[in-house]
Amino acid sequence: MSQVYLDNSATTRVCREAADKAYAMMTETYGNPSSLHSLGFQAEQELTAARRQVARMLGCQPEEVYFTSGGTESNNLAILGSVAAHPHGGRHIVTTAVEHSSVAAACDRLEKQGYEVTRLVPDESGTLTAAAIAAACRPDTALVAVMLVNNETGARFPLEQAVPAIRRVAPRAHIHCDAVQAAGKLPLHAGRWGVDSMAVSAHKIHGPKGVGALYLRKGVRVLPRNIGGKQEGGIRCGTEAAPLIAAFGAAVEALPTPAAQMAHYDSLRRRLMERLGDNPAIRFHLPQGGVPYIIHLSVPGLRSETMLHFLAQREVYVSSGSACSKGAASPVLTALGLPAAEIDGALRVSLCRDNTAEDMDRFAECLLEAMEKLARR
Amino acid sequence: MSQVYLDNSATTRVCREAADKAYAMMTETYGNPSSLHSLGFQAEQELTAARRQVARMLGCQPEEVYFTSGGTESNNLAILGSVAAHPHGGRHIVTTAVEHSSVAAACDRLEKQGYEVTRLVPDESGTLTAAAIAAACRPDTALVAVMLVNNETGARFPLEQAVPAIRRVAPRAHIHCDAVQAAGKLPLHAGRWGVDSMAVSAHKIHGPKGVGALYLRKGVRVLPRNIGGKQEGGIRCGTEAAPLIAAFGAAVEALPTPAAQMAHYDSLRRRLMERLGDNPAIRFHLPQGGVPYIIHLSVPGLRSETMLHFLAQREVYVSSGSACSKGAASPVLTALGLPAAEIDGALRVSLCRDNTAEDMDRFAECLLEAMEKLARR
Repeated sequence: MSQVYLDNSATTRVCREAADKAYAMMTETYGNPSSLHSLGFQAEQELTAARRQVARMLGCQPEEVYFTSGGTESNNLAILGSVAAHPHGGRHIVTTAVEHSSVAAACDRLEKQGYEVTRLVPDESGTLTAAAIAAACRPDTALVAVMLVNNETGARFPLEQAVPAIRRVAPRAHIHCDAVQAAGKLPLHAGRWGVDSMAVSAHKIHGPKGVGALYLRKGVRVLPRNIGGKQEGGIRCGTEAAPLIAAFGAAVEALPTPAAQMAHYDSLRRRLMERLGDNPAIRFHLPQGGVPYIIHLSVPGLRSETMLHFLAQREVYVSSGSACSKGAASPVLTALGLPAAEIDGALRVSLCRDNTAEDMDRFAECLLEAMEKLARR
Repeated sequence: MSQVYLDNSATTRVCREAADKAYAMMTETYGNPSSLHSLGFQAEQELTAARRQVARMLGCQPEEVYFTSGGTESNNLAILGSVAAHPHGGRHIVTTAVEHSSVAAACDRLEKQGYEVTRLVPDESGTLTAAAIAAACRPDTALVAVMLVNNETGARFPLEQAVPAIRRVAPRAHIHCDAVQAAGKLPLHAGRWGVDSMAVSAHKIHGPKGVGALYLRKGVRVLPRNIGGKQEGGIRCGTEAAPLIAAFGAAVEALPTPAAQMAHYDSLRRRLMERLGDNPAIRFHLPQGGVPYIIHLSVPGLRSETMLHFLAQREVYVSSGSACSKGAASPVLTALGLPAAEIDGALRVSLCRDNTAEDMDRFAECLLEAMEKLARR
């Protein structure tokens, strides 16, 4: 019996191309990219190549890409760094009530410092319109931080469509986009969209944990948070994690096109719905226009953790929500106003390119078995 | 002709044990340590094991070890985080004029925020006494940040001996020790020494770039800087870079004892001094009591960069100072008051356990050749 890994929004298996690249960099091209000798130059060349690869994925110029230690650091840097760079700017922030904890915690910290935070709540299906984002902005809005894809429900928030309207109302606002759950699967166009910053993480796209990137539009100022040295243009200091960065680039190179991926995810989701969609004991929460690679469902009356363990014993791995909340009731589902029974029984199935129709069948089979056996207890 | 890598204070080659561990974690044990299923638990167990291994190296309890993205983040977190956690504390900082840029930049930032910073200057041989550190402290000292081993000269600053005297004068001071250039080679006893925090980095001890650790004494408060999620007890949030952390642990396990290493470095340094020590055109800067694995020298009249390239063409890799300053005149050497000609012609030879007597001979030979050929031009 092989593993069925359906927790790809928590993290992905590193692809062979990326793992091999990291290994070669650790043991052969191991110089410090800042060193002035050839071993250093070789490592620096790898950084340059990776920067070009990641820029292509983000839809921006290579010199607008700053490597960080991951999505959390990228989000923190954009939010806390942009606000800190403009101490005399506005004191109002627009975000949503369902952001990733790294965005939510950064906004919370600013709120404690006296910023007024407007947290948009998606409608009960989980969606949020561009008009709603723009309407929340004011002339004193200093920051707009909205994710592109919600990590629990798969809702797709059209921040990019709101940009022109935000600029009209709040010309000095820094517009930040958390694209961690979108990158590598949906087409990104940071430059064309006109956002000021965009955060991505390697380990969600078959790259290694410990590296991410921040797109920072040319001319946009943030106060660095990791300071000392001159790495990453002084925006993110500390010895560059060259093996991870190069592996990030390799993982990007190995990505199928967004179109190919979407077709694949669509067919997998259809398959799952064919198996389970008609079952009245299962509630699917599929936001309109949401991405097909995150499938959120509940089995009211059964606790997620119990189902999760039952499934894991059969080597089927899903999650009860975001990995970061680690067992606590999901603040995202709570914000959406789901009934307590649906929150308690929530499961997230998140896909990657390696998943197959058989994986969907195995999950469906095991879930039905869980519902039968666990309900009887 | 094989490579002679003598730039180990900039970074080291990742050892086989660590690289293999990282690879296995990336491709097999790839779960998110925060996930509630068995793939997550397996990754978390690896974190637990690594925490124990790193704690042993630091001389502390495993629960006092917090993993970060590297030395820079560890230093930043200790310095900026401890000060931020005590907004009503004292406004005076004691540090040295020759700290790593991540410590220096953090102190500079605090100075701009109104803190008074005392920067101790080592004597011309590069040394600094425990008495001098303690004497700089005052009742309103909020922070003492002193490195254990200087990254350019190899001077050993006895911060640990100053701790009791610092506590008497400045009972509320946070005492931070940058042990990046000491870890893995000198015995560390964070707990017994009584410092509040201590920073180390994996890639200086044959672990991977992109991971470091901060020892934080039980009960000591710092304001987290990477926020969101609950990882690392909330002190350092974001998905744990499990493959890197496990590889860090593996690198620690693979370390020879400090005694064995010291004997090795002593013999290598002796060998080099036998070859070059009597040459009147070479000035050695060997601080009294300095570590034997960093050998700092100057060839007045020859520019470091020129020599560095000459040596690199022969696959002998050294540095002109810290990798972080990347070609700029070393602030450390400037602070020590060395003549400009000696700063311009400075070379740092930094050793690791894999270096051999033959490496010393090759370096000596190539340096003499450089002095002859480059001087003639």
